[in-house]
Amino acid sequence: MTTPAPRLDPALAARLKHDDAGLLTAVVQDATDHRVLMVGWMDDEALARTLSSGRVTYWSRSRSEYWRKGDTSGHVQWVRSVALDCDGDTLLVSVDQVGAACHRGTDTCFDGGDLGAVVLPPTERTA
Amino acid sequence: MTTPAPRLDPALAARLKHDDAGLLTAVVQDATDHRVLMVGWMDDEALARTLSSGRVTYWSRSRSEYWRKGDTSGHVQWVRSVALDCDGDTLLVSVDQVGAACHRGTDTCFDGGDLGAVVLPPTERTA
Repeated sequence: MTTPAPRLDPALAARLKHDDAGLLTAVVQDATDHRVLMVGWMDDEALARTLSSGRVTYWSRSRSEYWRKGDTSGHVQWVRSVALDCDGDTLLVSVDQVGAACHRGTDTCFDGGDLGAVVLPPTERTA
Repeated sequence: MTTPAPRLDPALAARLKHDDAGLLTAVVQDATDHRVLMVGWMDDEALARTLSSGRVTYWSRSRSEYWRKGDTSGHVQWVRSVALDCDGDTLLVSVDQVGAACHRGTDTCFDGGDLGAVVLPPTERTA
């Protein structure tokens, strides 16, 4: 079951700068604890569905199909807000996340991914 | 002035999944207030510099050069942590941000970009 394809407002569509595949980067953040949950991809129709339906829909680059988060996993993302960045190529999607955001079952796609970066103490921070 | 080019640990390099341009998506989040500040791009050397130097370095897609945030603006990003996502194609960079993160002078690149998404009230959230 998918919702009928909505269309983007032409004024908004004119502000978008797509990548070579016609996609925008979508950064998804938990509205409550502000953790960054995952990054997905949207074409204009996925964005239009997301803006109009209350739920987040992506374009799957690996499966070449629309993918409404939670339809198979139950881990729905309810939209709280969507913002476009200054360059017009990235979206920030704030959501109420049901269950785990990551398909591995972790809360976020970054859990366990720390790379051990060097962190300078304040006394050594001289730009 | 740039730091000498460091090399990525081979075990980490093997985990990375680059896009067609050899880049990873880098989501940058304020370590204190947890706002998503901006999204940039890194190749392996930009990531190696970021992991080893305490400051965030990007690859500029428009200028085709490395770009250490703050070198011209003074708006330095001090690294607090870097994490790789489950797919190996996206980084989450937590920073202490000096000044405005956006080149327009706003705190984040998403300020003023709200798209007025439909938000369903809890009573209408039936997946």
